[in-house]
Parts: sequence; C-alpha cells; structure tokens
Amino acid sequence: MIRTPYLLFLGDAPDQLAAKVAQGIRDWRPELALGQLRMAGCKADLGLDEMSVRQAVDAGAKTLVIGVANRGGVISDAWKEVLVEALEAGLDIASGLHNLLRDEPDLVAAARANGRELHDVRVPERDYPVATGKPRPGRRCLAVGTDCSVGKMYTALAMEREMRARGMNADFRATGQTGILITGNGVPLDAVVADFMAGAVETISPDNDADHWDLIEGQGSLFHASYSGVTMALIHGGQPDALILCHEPTRAHMRGLPDYQLPSLEELRDLALTLARVVNPACQVVGISVNTANMAEDEALACLADIETRMGLPAVDPYRQGAGRLVDALQRI
Amino acid sequence: MIRTPYLLFLGDAPDQLAAKVAQGIRDWRPELALGQLRMAGCKADLGLDEMSVRQAVDAGAKTLVIGVANRGGVISDAWKEVLVEALEAGLDIASGLHNLLRDEPDLVAAARANGRELHDVRVPERDYPVATGKPRPGRRCLAVGTDCSVGKMYTALAMEREMRARGMNADFRATGQTGILITGNGVPLDAVVADFMAGAVETISPDNDADHWDLIEGQGSLFHASYSGVTMALIHGGQPDALILCHEPTRAHMRGLPDYQLPSLEELRDLALTLARVVNPACQVVGISVNTANMAEDEALACLADIETRMGLPAVDPYRQGAGRLVDALQRI
Repeated sequence: MIRTPYLLFLGDAPDQLAAKVAQGIRDWRPELALGQLRMAGCKADLGLDEMSVRQAVDAGAKTLVIGVANRGGVISDAWKEVLVEALEAGLDIASGLHNLLRDEPDLVAAARANGRELHDVRVPERDYPVATGKPRPGRRCLAVGTDCSVGKMYTALAMEREMRARGMNADFRATGQTGILITGNGVPLDAVVADFMAGAVETISPDNDADHWDLIEGQGSLFHASYSGVTMALIHGGQPDALILCHEPTRAHMRGLPDYQLPSLEELRDLALTLARVVNPACQVVGISVNTANMAEDEALACLADIETRMGLPAVDPYRQGAGRLVDALQRI
Repeated sequence: MIRTPYLLFLGDAPDQLAAKVAQGIRDWRPELALGQLRMAGCKADLGLDEMSVRQAVDAGAKTLVIGVANRGGVISDAWKEVLVEALEAGLDIASGLHNLLRDEPDLVAAARANGRELHDVRVPERDYPVATGKPRPGRRCLAVGTDCSVGKMYTALAMEREMRARGMNADFRATGQTGILITGNGVPLDAVVADFMAGAVETISPDNDADHWDLIEGQGSLFHASYSGVTMALIHGGQPDALILCHEPTRAHMRGLPDYQLPSLEELRDLALTLARVVNPACQVVGISVNTANMAEDEALACLADIETRMGLPAVDPYRQGAGRLVDALQRI
C-alpha cells in the first residue's frame, strides 16, 4: 500500500511520452496528484502546480512517485539528489523502474535513516497464498485481450470512472506496475512466483459487498505464447462474472511474436468463456473494447459497427466514446 | 545440473513411503543409484548396497541425494553430521526438502570450505528468458491431467523407458522436484516467476534431432483453479506435437478443492488441444493414461475398455500394463 497523495517526479524527461506513468496518475487519479517536480531540461508537463519537495510536504504529499522513465537504465546523480532530499523531508518513494530503488545503497541508507519506505512496484511487496478457488461475495469484471497491450488497463479504468460517476460501487484492481502506481496498490502479477499467481489475484479482489464490482486489470493474452499463464491465473483467480474482450484491429501479428497471427474475437470469446466457467459457471461476455487509435474516425466507426453486428455485443472504443455502453452491459447482468 | 551417480541418503526414514524420492530414483534411474546410506532406526530399504560416505566416494558417487522427507521440517543434527561428512569427502548434496540446504549455515560453510555444491531443487538454479514461441526442431509429448497428481510424471517416465527400450531417441524433461532429482536436471516450474514460466519450458526442451522426443513432465491441470497457469505455460512453452490425457477415475473432487468436480476427458481433450494448437497447429491427442490404483483388476480393465471406446483412443494404465500402446500411438503420428 503506497501512501497518498503524490508528488509526481518528472525528472529530466526528454518528452511527454517519457512521463506516461505520471500522465496516467494525472488522468485517472487527479485527486492523488498534488503537484509536479521538474528538473532542469524537463520536456514533459502535466499542467499541475510546480512544487519543490518542501512545498509538496507542506501541501500534504506522502510519496514521491517516479513518473518518468530513466535514461539508459541508470538512476543519475542529479535524480539522486532530489530523491534523497525527498526521503529526508519525510516522503516515501515509489518507482516502477526496471532498476530497483532497493539496489541503490544511498537511497536505502537515506530511507532507513529517515524511517521512510522505498516501493519498487515491479516486485511483489508481500507473499501470496495458493488460490483456494472458493467463491467470493461481490462481483468481478475482467478484460481479456486478443493480444498484449491492446487497452485492457485503459478499458478497466474507463469503466471504473463511469461506474463511480453513476454512483456504483466499483474499484479498479491493479495487476501491473502502472496500475499500481496509479491506485497506490495491487500486485505486479508477472513478477509473482508461479504457484501463487491465482492466489495473488484472489487476494487483491477479496470478499466484498454484493453490489460491488472489482474491475480487475488484465495482463497478457490466452493466445500469447510468452505470457498466457499469467492470463490464465487472472481468469481462475479472478472468477469473473463478466468478461470484456479487448482488441486492436490493425495489428499485423502478436506483440513480439512475428510468426503468430491474432486470434479472432470469436476464438477469444469461446476460449475465455470456457476457462472462466470452470470457476464461475455464470460468467458472461458482456462487451467488446476496441482500440481504434490507429484508425481514422470513419474507419473506426465502421469497424466498431461491423464487430458489434458480428458478435451481437456492444463494441466501443472507450477512448473515443467513453465506457458508458460497456457499463450499461454490466448493469444488465 | 546435478552431478551423477548418486549416494541415496535414507536417513532415519520412519517407513518406506517417506523415502519415495529415493525410490523414484531407484525405479527410474537405477544406473544412477550407486548405493544407499541408512542411519540408525531407518525403516526404508531400497535393496541397494549399503554404503558409508567413504565407500560411496570410492565407488565414484558425485552427489548425496536426500531421498527422504525430514520429520517436522527440521534438518536434524544427526542428519547434519552425515551431510557435513559427505561435503568434506567431496560429494555435492541435492535436496527437494521444503527447508533449504542453503538456509543451514553449517552446511553452507562446509560446502564452501570444500568447494562443493548444495542443490535445492525446489528453487530455480538459474534465470530463464521470456518465451519466444519459435518452433523448435525435434518432437515433444506432454501429459495433461483432468486434475493434479493423477500420474503425469509416472506416465512420461514409463513412456521414456519404453521408447528407449525400442531404440528411440527420447528424454524425460523434469518440471518438478522429484523429476529433477531422478534425472539430475530440469526446472521446478511452480517456483519460477510468472513472466518466465513458458521460457523455462522452452529452455528445458530445446532444439533437437528431428526424430528426438522430449517427454515433458506435466504439472497441475487446466481445470485446477490454483495451478492452471503453470499448466498453460507448459502447453505454450512446450509446443507439444502429442498430448497424453491423464485421469484418475475414482477421485471425488479436484485435489484440494472440495467444491470442484473433475472435468470429463472430452472437456480436457478439447481444451488442451485448442490451447496447444495456438503454438503447434499439428498437435494431436494420441492416448489416455488412467491411474487405476484404487480399483480392482477387473474393474480397472472395464474402466479402461469403456474409456477407450468412448474416446476412440488407446487407454492404458502404464503401471498395470506398461506404456507400450501409448508409445505405439506416438510412433503413428
């Protein structure tokens, strides 16, 4: 559990894209984004109040989040100066960098000396049990994709926002590093030991009110040879009542696997439903989220209409159209 | 890679069952089992030559394998005395115990002082890459089960033995601790980090001769909510050409999951084949291995005949009948 709210550290980001983790927090949890700290030469800007470490602490910030990729995989001395200052001022630090904070002796020493925490969200912060497979009160929705990186996290966050706007009882449950930094908790599922993957998913979507929805962040794809085991654990640990199929229609092959074609949405529907019904016989596919970022508006709308007719399910691009129709579909089951 | 041959340490085993790891080595790799070392009060006996550490070293042993479960999860002082003696005499030690050798400071010190290795086969000894999904020369067979612990390892080892007896080019590939101790190498798949599970399976069944068969040890079950992700990684990393379905007909519910019924063999066939064909479109289900240990002979034979008719595939209990008909089926594809 990462303490909130955050000071978003943009460092010396070379462009806006390098700060996409910070942008995700700004977009999806604006109430947690107290301000931004930019160093000399920073080319990213979230439009937040500029704050020094001291100003952020005075404003109530609890954690400095490294919201930017580091260059060349090195945590530079220039960064270190700010990070040590933050620890000394009473902030924890959270990071999704590949190089871990805990491997930097000066940061570890400063954290210890000041009683602060270093959160490396790429690695699990706790042990998880073996999954029990027991039904849990409350309802759960999981996005599954024809491929990796087709918009599963975006879809779940957009649905959460829409559901909360409607007064529904809903929580996004992060299973990857960006999602964890956005919400302040979750599990980096791809870094969990095999035997405990499904148990980790059970843990982050526990017993809840009967009308509560967990929107569990999907990972990988059942059809992706490298990561399908993680997706399987999400389905069997998540026990979803509802599945959203996610797809990117212009992709030429599976991400990182040039010899693999994407499955059809029909194949994904049939396989995901078969697997989900092992743990939840009532599970249904309720809608389709299509990432049309690479298509012009008219092409995108035609594609969505075609998929909707073919599959007999609402098909939307939540980025263009919002997630309203996906939430409508959830409310019908 | 564990150095062979072995001295099998039976310690103070309270009964024969407690020495089942040693029994597995004795049964499946008798050429690796040079002798047995039994302490006072040992109730297990493999019928091997009794050897002291010194006699085993003189006979050419390279590794002492702890072939027995320890009582109460403690590596006792009485054991320690023998283990330190083995390290000092030039033997490595291999163990599948839950408590790790590496967590025992006196063993670590003795290993270091004598330049010897401690193999804890419950934890991976190396890092594994992300799976590439690329086709590999050579052929592969994987056993998949309706449940956990239905005889997948036994089936693969029995097939390996039969294939070698026929002069075929075949290797059992261990994916669990007992299999690793039996063969001296493999991966403890349930202890691998999620992102690298399928890559670990690719690593242990690499490019090979066109006529070579890997018999990959199965784990878990696609229908077992706790461990299905591991099974998925075996299918997508293993890229099997042939699947053997494994089943235990008398089981009342999924192992450890009292509320879950076993799937039918038809359900297992359809699901496993769908998943395997994602990575190997030519994959076929070639036979069925039925564990009839809990049935009388006539009941077992009737059950096998029924399954064979129903499924249109050879159905055998390799323990009662040998694996010949399963190997015949492999040779036909």
